[in-house]
Amino acid sequence: VRDIEIAGVGMTAFGKHEDRTLESLGAEAVRAALADAGIDGDRLDAAYVGNVLGGGQAGSRVLVLEGITGIPILNVEAACATGSAALREAMHAIQLGVADVVLVLGVEKLTGLFQGGIDLGRTDRESALGLTVPATYALTASRHMAQHGTTAEQLAAVTVKNRRHGSRNPRAMFIDTPGIDDVLGSPAIADPLTLLQCCPNADGAAAAVLTATGAVKRRSRRAVRVLASELVSGTSSRRQVDITRGDVSRRAAARAYAAAHIGPEDIDVAEVHDPFSIGEVVSTEALGLCPRGQGGDFAASGASALGGRLPVNPSGGLLSKGHPLGATGVAQVAELTWQLRGEAGGRQVHAPRYGLAHTVGGGVAALDAVASVVTILAGEA
Amino acid sequence: VRDIEIAGVGMTAFGKHEDRTLESLGAEAVRAALADAGIDGDRLDAAYVGNVLGGGQAGSRVLVLEGITGIPILNVEAACATGSAALREAMHAIQLGVADVVLVLGVEKLTGLFQGGIDLGRTDRESALGLTVPATYALTASRHMAQHGTTAEQLAAVTVKNRRHGSRNPRAMFIDTPGIDDVLGSPAIADPLTLLQCCPNADGAAAAVLTATGAVKRRSRRAVRVLASELVSGTSSRRQVDITRGDVSRRAAARAYAAAHIGPEDIDVAEVHDPFSIGEVVSTEALGLCPRGQGGDFAASGASALGGRLPVNPSGGLLSKGHPLGATGVAQVAELTWQLRGEAGGRQVHAPRYGLAHTVGGGVAALDAVASVVTILAGEA
Repeated sequence: VRDIEIAGVGMTAFGKHEDRTLESLGAEAVRAALADAGIDGDRLDAAYVGNVLGGGQAGSRVLVLEGITGIPILNVEAACATGSAALREAMHAIQLGVADVVLVLGVEKLTGLFQGGIDLGRTDRESALGLTVPATYALTASRHMAQHGTTAEQLAAVTVKNRRHGSRNPRAMFIDTPGIDDVLGSPAIADPLTLLQCCPNADGAAAAVLTATGAVKRRSRRAVRVLASELVSGTSSRRQVDITRGDVSRRAAARAYAAAHIGPEDIDVAEVHDPFSIGEVVSTEALGLCPRGQGGDFAASGASALGGRLPVNPSGGLLSKGHPLGATGVAQVAELTWQLRGEAGGRQVHAPRYGLAHTVGGGVAALDAVASVVTILAGEA
Repeated sequence: VRDIEIAGVGMTAFGKHEDRTLESLGAEAVRAALADAGIDGDRLDAAYVGNVLGGGQAGSRVLVLEGITGIPILNVEAACATGSAALREAMHAIQLGVADVVLVLGVEKLTGLFQGGIDLGRTDRESALGLTVPATYALTASRHMAQHGTTAEQLAAVTVKNRRHGSRNPRAMFIDTPGIDDVLGSPAIADPLTLLQCCPNADGAAAAVLTATGAVKRRSRRAVRVLASELVSGTSSRRQVDITRGDVSRRAAARAYAAAHIGPEDIDVAEVHDPFSIGEVVSTEALGLCPRGQGGDFAASGASALGGRLPVNPSGGLLSKGHPLGATGVAQVAELTWQLRGEAGGRQVHAPRYGLAHTVGGGVAALDAVASVVTILAGEA
């Protein structure tokens, strides 16, 4: 099986881009990734494009603007794991040898989409009765507190940490740095989760150029390789015996560690899906980055902060950057690429060797269907 | 590279299923394909699901009903080529060795979706001004008539042939057999295309189980292999120098023939994208199944009818079956599988060895972005 390198990455600022189209956001990220890789669009053999709510053919609609046409362009969707799943298909195409240079694009324009409110009830009775995404995470938080003694302050510490990281990321939506009291004092969304513990909708795009090693002259001083990317689907956590286990993420992580021939103890930096504060708590445990039940302390102790034992979400995570669904997973990989190259500026983790990216989620119209992707990258020692 | 077999196929009847959900239609096709393959759902290593307008996570929403969870489930979209593109990703996963037994599902529920009319103008100015899908095909027909002497009667003969084929297909939407005068006398939709030359929207699902050769004990007397499946994207035919050339299909076919190591002269049966009568005319030429400019005569002469030199659309095509977007490409492969096994009943082509499936199209919100997939299957001599 051929080695996969990330030749270039790029992303737009995430946020409310009221005056921009999906196509324009996507094209900006594509141009940035191609420039970073030092290649023109005509070098691409294929493109895999992650988009959730853009209405079909998102990839071609973006790429035709950049004159990129005539190649296989496939749109993929796996809820919040959409962008990560696109990267996995690109990796497979290169490993199989049907392509040498492949573009991965994640793009989403959410602003303006939910003017009439989100239609939750069409296919899911429990959602119509109130068991929405925030409510499901709130139940998870309550249970985690009861079961493991996690405190409201520990949950809030996730936001405080990630917003502090995000303040150093020029592409993040939020740059201010609320404290514990600010987080706990913000309006209740679904008890015990407050507003600042919920990520905002956002618009944005992120792109990466994946290549077979040697297919493109390397521009970066340090190579970044994709060691593994694993997708697992499952039913919602509310169907599990224990809602706090993060079972789908746990299985995706087990597969990814096995494929990469490393373990969680080898990870130096991680981008972990944090749509809500409790999400990072549950997922850092499910990924094996901290012991079961200690995800709250992992954040509150500073262990997962920049300068700590294992920095989590140095980009600021979804809580700082916002969550343009299809773009999120690719943006994580862009961040890890910058980190592994030593190009992350004021939020640089000290000399990381291995990075892990993780997404998990269910669609609005299908809360019971969950997908998770875990991707493991390696820099040079 | 590993050989790929089609271990089983299944599909629902296509048509207006007002009282059925997308999930129910998909599950019926999955059960049929698994039964045909003689395996349970727990034998599946992965699933690729084609759906265009179902609102996200279509695959997991269907498969959870059948207790199929915990595996990678990825939704893909490429306009009218969606189902075919799902099959291609499944083939890649098996060829790469990351899976041995993979489900391909195409599913679409269109009834009830366009109550307020189709919103054409949101991202495409030309569509808003009237250059819709039927209008684009109508321009193609007019140009083909002027350039190649194709007649209105020859165009109508495509419908007459396919509806006659479809009358022998219990899963087709239409079973009556209009004559040339009926077709030409039906209401004008976009001159010169009349109502009976336009395929109807439909609901339905089709599924196939792909396996590495030997991974599953073969139940069918005759093996059916996937020799090649190629996806090419491009800009709309209205951007081409010659609107009648079918350039995107032409490139996909060239790649597929090269990968399969056969040529168009080897094809014994074909399922060709016929959303409009002129579509089959242009595409049979682009696929090399008949000479350039002679697609009208190819249909009107009987050469592409059952009993003719090269039967095209023995299933009845989209003109008889209807066009449930994501399901269409998988249904073509189901038909070819039955044909290559000699199980197509009253519409059986005589002892076919090689079959070709072809889809091409652009999304409603992105007419300028076109995708085409050509898939080549082989039966046993």
